[in-house]
Amino acid sequence: MVRIMAEKITPRSEDFSKWYQDIVLQAKLADYSPVKGCMVIRPNGYSIWELMQKDLDRRIKKSGARNAYFPLFIPESFLKKEAEHVEGFAPQCAVVTYAGGKELEEKLVVRPTSETIINSMFAKWVQSYRDLPLMINQWANVVRWEMRTRLFLRTTEFLWQEGHTCHATPEEAEEETRRMLGVYAEFAEQILAMPVIPGLKSESEKFAGALRTYCIEAMMQDKKALQAGTSHNLSTNFAQAFNTLFLDKDGKQKLVHQTSWGVSTRLIGGMIMTHSDDKGLVLPPRLATTHVVIVPILGSSPAKAQVLDKADELQRAIRDQALHANLPYEIGVEVDRDETKQPGWKFHEHELLGTPIRIELGPRDLEKGQAVMTRRDEGKKEFISLQAVPERVIHQLVSMQKELLERARALRDASTYRVASYAEFKKQLDETGGFFVAPWCQSKDCEAKVKDETKATIRCLPLDEHHNPIQESGPCLACGRGGETLRAIFARAY
Amino acid sequence: MVRIMAEKITPRSEDFSKWYQDIVLQAKLADYSPVKGCMVIRPNGYSIWELMQKDLDRRIKKSGARNAYFPLFIPESFLKKEAEHVEGFAPQCAVVTYAGGKELEEKLVVRPTSETIINSMFAKWVQSYRDLPLMINQWANVVRWEMRTRLFLRTTEFLWQEGHTCHATPEEAEEETRRMLGVYAEFAEQILAMPVIPGLKSESEKFAGALRTYCIEAMMQDKKALQAGTSHNLSTNFAQAFNTLFLDKDGKQKLVHQTSWGVSTRLIGGMIMTHSDDKGLVLPPRLATTHVVIVPILGSSPAKAQVLDKADELQRAIRDQALHANLPYEIGVEVDRDETKQPGWKFHEHELLGTPIRIELGPRDLEKGQAVMTRRDEGKKEFISLQAVPERVIHQLVSMQKELLERARALRDASTYRVASYAEFKKQLDETGGFFVAPWCQSKDCEAKVKDETKATIRCLPLDEHHNPIQESGPCLACGRGGETLRAIFARAY
Repeated sequence: MVRIMAEKITPRSEDFSKWYQDIVLQAKLADYSPVKGCMVIRPNGYSIWELMQKDLDRRIKKSGARNAYFPLFIPESFLKKEAEHVEGFAPQCAVVTYAGGKELEEKLVVRPTSETIINSMFAKWVQSYRDLPLMINQWANVVRWEMRTRLFLRTTEFLWQEGHTCHATPEEAEEETRRMLGVYAEFAEQILAMPVIPGLKSESEKFAGALRTYCIEAMMQDKKALQAGTSHNLSTNFAQAFNTLFLDKDGKQKLVHQTSWGVSTRLIGGMIMTHSDDKGLVLPPRLATTHVVIVPILGSSPAKAQVLDKADELQRAIRDQALHANLPYEIGVEVDRDETKQPGWKFHEHELLGTPIRIELGPRDLEKGQAVMTRRDEGKKEFISLQAVPERVIHQLVSMQKELLERARALRDASTYRVASYAEFKKQLDETGGFFVAPWCQSKDCEAKVKDETKATIRCLPLDEHHNPIQESGPCLACGRGGETLRAIFARAY
Repeated sequence: MVRIMAEKITPRSEDFSKWYQDIVLQAKLADYSPVKGCMVIRPNGYSIWELMQKDLDRRIKKSGARNAYFPLFIPESFLKKEAEHVEGFAPQCAVVTYAGGKELEEKLVVRPTSETIINSMFAKWVQSYRDLPLMINQWANVVRWEMRTRLFLRTTEFLWQEGHTCHATPEEAEEETRRMLGVYAEFAEQILAMPVIPGLKSESEKFAGALRTYCIEAMMQDKKALQAGTSHNLSTNFAQAFNTLFLDKDGKQKLVHQTSWGVSTRLIGGMIMTHSDDKGLVLPPRLATTHVVIVPILGSSPAKAQVLDKADELQRAIRDQALHANLPYEIGVEVDRDETKQPGWKFHEHELLGTPIRIELGPRDLEKGQAVMTRRDEGKKEFISLQAVPERVIHQLVSMQKELLERARALRDASTYRVASYAEFKKQLDETGGFFVAPWCQSKDCEAKVKDETKATIRCLPLDEHHNPIQESGPCLACGRGGETLRAIFARAY
């Protein structure tokens, strides 16, 4: 195994953006590639994506969708069939103009998203109401040419899943759009321990081609917002463009009502910026491969052999306890036997890598019948009797997963403000950043004014228990007028 | 659930190629896409790929490799760094010439394989002998522009895994190349129930840029060969091109020795052409999602309710038995309660879909305390007492997996010939097809002559117990000379 030497990590307080980059590069999660804007996801980062995939894939299948795979290339004419869609995506497209040694008759766009190519197939597959709902999901790479990129958060190529569904009625499509928003919110909170606010996007922020876009928004430790997932009600926009029709029970040909929804490798960046600290990565147990590292403190023999034996015994006991506890994920327990590195060096490495629990075990501990346990997020040493270690480990993993979410939620709530005036908003935004809950009169001009003047955008319109935006009597944050005002969250965002 | 109506499937004896296409399309495994040469993998086909991935991924990780992800795009200059490599792949490349609304300064090739882009990163990551071996695997899409395509077997875009490893010595690289060949052979036989012959490719058939290419070759039911996986010893060819150096223990900078290896969605096509029959798909249990379908034969009530209750009971009992039997895969058991379709219609649908075991259960069976069981590959009805059904199901699934392999192996062996002369070879090849085991003098001219005159190629040089090609004293199939002749397998191939 290649060991990773922790270098100096820039503190968050000094330069948050540099801190993030230091962690991603030093923990070997990702690397810059020689292709502009494209990243390389290294094994340490990819294993996090695999754990996210495994869990989310299960949730998606449970929702009734099945996985499939559609072509990477989209004929240019397809993209142009939906007017808003092409306007939104054309500036970001990478285009294949020749292939197999010849210039192509029709240019092929590398998919920025797959609504069009998928509709060309749906139009063929859907015939009758009996074929509905049709629910498909795809795990794939997509390409959107970006000017400013940042590892995981915004890259020219990224990995994602995109769901695409067809329904007989607008009500079913809306229900599906909202259901998947709920699936994403639960996934983000339960697995990433990242609290999110589900909401509706404003008209100017919605997906190009959608009737309505819902999203989940998270707050990073620098108080900026991150859009962590989107779910779109596409209405019949793409069905019209591709003639995706079905014969309904009443004998009439009708357009299908569609949805699409996706999350991407961007979530890895969001998870890092939610939990990690100045010592390195902090991994929620649900996203760790190695959950526990046992570091033997080796004296001279014969104590050394005893310590190593006990470390092995502890490893087995923790694994057994994990099976017994029936945790919904597999527990990785490693004994770090490498004698070329000192314990202190190892501690730093595992702090950088985000290993949730560290156990130290030395000759003196053995004499006292104890071990020293440290949770990555708390960093406090705890002395535990050897027999109690396995149960304590499981308890701490469960607690850590829960407390990371609670801590992140508390931080977000403490940085969420209600302001009395636009002036106060601007002042507070510049001083502390954060989320600003304020009424908005639904005018595009007001939204644009705030964005131009402060770089804050409407992240979403939070939802009531019926999943509708919340009426909140004015005055509008930007223009001060009352009337048809809705509750909005304003923030600067990634 | 959308039901699939089995249409007429062209018999294999009439038109093997049309038979294959009928099965792929009618069982909804894949479909043609509007993008020339690209396929759509439909959920029924993708679920087979997911099961292959899950099992092979486990084997790859066990071998010591970790998953990562590298960019889809390769700068054109990278591809040109290894002379043989660019010569082999350039004619098949799809090229992005503009992106983000601008013409690109350097054209980007959509990866046909990733040796070059990965070496550009390896050159940065590998510093010392301590970083070796470096073993990476990637699950990805690749693009190779093809003139004649066929669903799964040869498509412009396909899905695959590609492993890439770096080693300190040529011996270690050769060992890894051979080890992965063994992993592929075991995977093909244990999971796909597809017998394969591991061997070495001739110089003219090896990977563009490799020192040596090993492969596994399978025989389809039409007696043609299918290359099912390859493992390449790349020597230092790409390391030289990209300056992938390490500081060895002796203090000297040295080039790493590399391997690469891959299998693709082509395996789905190979599996279909190995086992399926004129009634439809035959799925080895290891690649099925639904293993058992229980079809209740519904009379009038109250018998109907009793039959349905018993069917549900049987479903539970089979699931319990599967857990008890500790099978290495999950068993899917469905009760087909749909009252809009007749039993006979359901039988045909499940034959088309390849469901391994069908159980019929009607009022008269209930009276006799029995059920009627039919294995998809045998098609013979078996009357089993109800209590014995669960155990019998598990037994039959295990037997079916084993017997599919044995049957395919027997068919292959019966169609493998040793011929006394070139004239006899040509005659037999035209009459029956098959594999022809014959000495080859290692001359390119002889290989080319056979190919030109018969369309048969050297599929591989089979290996002895030390993984070396087998010396077989002449005369050479093509020229009749003796001397340094090796055993070769000649066949027409996909």
